Amino acid sequence: MIKVVLIGSGNLAQHLIVAFQEAYQFNKNVVLVQAFARKKETLTHLLDSNKIVSDWEQITQADLYILAVSDDAIHEVSTQLPYSNCLVVHTSGAMPMTILNSKNRKGVFYPLQSFSKDKEISFSSIPICLEAEHQDDFLMIEKVAQALSGITYAIASQQRKALHVAAVFVNNFTNHLYQLGAEICEENQIPFAILHPLIQETAQKITTLKPELAQTGPAIRNDQKTIDAHEEFLKNNPQLNLYKILTQSIQNHGKKL
Amino acid sequence: MIKVVLIGSGNLAQHLIVAFQEAYQFNKNVVLVQAFARKKETLTHLLDSNKIVSDWEQITQADLYILAVSDDAIHEVSTQLPYSNCLVVHTSGAMPMTILNSKNRKGVFYPLQSFSKDKEISFSSIPICLEAEHQDDFLMIEKVAQALSGITYAIASQQRKALHVAAVFVNNFTNHLYQLGAEICEENQIPFAILHPLIQETAQKITTLKPELAQTGPAIRNDQKTIDAHEEFLKNNPQLNLYKILTQSIQNHGKKL
Repeated sequence: MIKVVLIGSGNLAQHLIVAFQEAYQFNKNVVLVQAFARKKETLTHLLDSNKIVSDWEQITQADLYILAVSDDAIHEVSTQLPYSNCLVVHTSGAMPMTILNSKNRKGVFYPLQSFSKDKEISFSSIPICLEAEHQDDFLMIEKVAQALSGITYAIASQQRKALHVAAVFVNNFTNHLYQLGAEICEENQIPFAILHPLIQETAQKITTLKPELAQTGPAIRNDQKTIDAHEEFLKNNPQLNLYKILTQSIQNHGKKL
Repeated sequence: MIKVVLIGSGNLAQHLIVAFQEAYQFNKNVVLVQAFARKKETLTHLLDSNKIVSDWEQITQADLYILAVSDDAIHEVSTQLPYSNCLVVHTSGAMPMTILNSKNRKGVFYPLQSFSKDKEISFSSIPICLEAEHQDDFLMIEKVAQALSGITYAIASQQRKALHVAAVFVNNFTNHLYQLGAEICEENQIPFAILHPLIQETAQKITTLKPELAQTGPAIRNDQKTIDAHEEFLKNNPQLNLYKILTQSIQNHGKKL
């Protein structure tokens, strides 16, 4: 039985608590024994209050300490932890494993997904990217990750950095393009919902077709007439610049193929 | 019973033929009586060869002629059609209704989706954007559209132009961001499949949450440390410029809220 203590009370920490509780119903080999939150009341809707502590000295001994805290807080929290030679992992895509205090054994447990407070999400489809200093520790966090998700990857710190940048492109930047599309709709009294099926299909298509092969539209087929018409349509719109740069980028990539 | 003739043999024409045949099994009020293709053999795998013609003079009389041809060909094909005062619609997102020859009654029947040759797609979830000069004609193409899809919208030419630009943002440009993400993964020996669940979730989220409210990541939370680290990571990469411009665009939009 692997005993886990979770430190943090934000979005990810809360999703993890739910996931650990669900996992425990199917797999008694991993158990969340305690959560640490500066304000206990932020977690009482999810966990028995006797399992929540807000005082470092009350933190119990466990096999694994998971820090689900902001990037800036990881080093400090790992230093505060009143144990040494325990296994401590952070959950950040952006930080190297070495940001953790060296008094404990280090690792990373990074669920690659975008968590929103008001959006439920099933952990079972979330890839968890794992890293550890020691082989035994890796095997332990792999067991924990598999109890939650089943989709696990060994990803070293330098790769995780690349992955985090790639995630910004496919998640944050993509969502911003959705926003620009929604704005163009709104300005023209068109319900944005008309575009939902196209958005779903675009996202679905790349699971079976490489994105470079799935590329369609006026840019890739060098349809200058349509591009001109679109640029004319956007001429007083701050989106014109982005339209031009993304069109250019698609055409530059097309040439490389 | 509404009799339809389809003109064209490309991706969209082929998907429409399949959709008309499926629809006919459930709804005998709409029937595809003939298809026109310059080369009959491009459609013989989909339709009885006695229903395919490649000579303008063999085109039969029908209630509705659907032109599924390239934007450049719409005007000429609508001129070639050896009938007058019939209802003729094109299927383009980019072209106004007025591109059609005036000898017939005009309309537009625009299925808003991205069609690939090797990717099956169910028409039942595709929004069809409709426009017609005359109310009676609108009601007829609405019946046809509902036989195929069930999701229909009345969209005037000027709105359709806006919609087409918005579609480029959420489909073509988004797919390009997927490609950039895939390239960053590849350069760092990371399987792109790790990002698939994040891509699906990002696309799913905006069906219940407005994109501006779904925005996450370093740009929107002004996390300059992470932005700097990402820019440093991309410093010799042609993607750096796009990273900066998209980050700036997210931040400019955040200020407007």
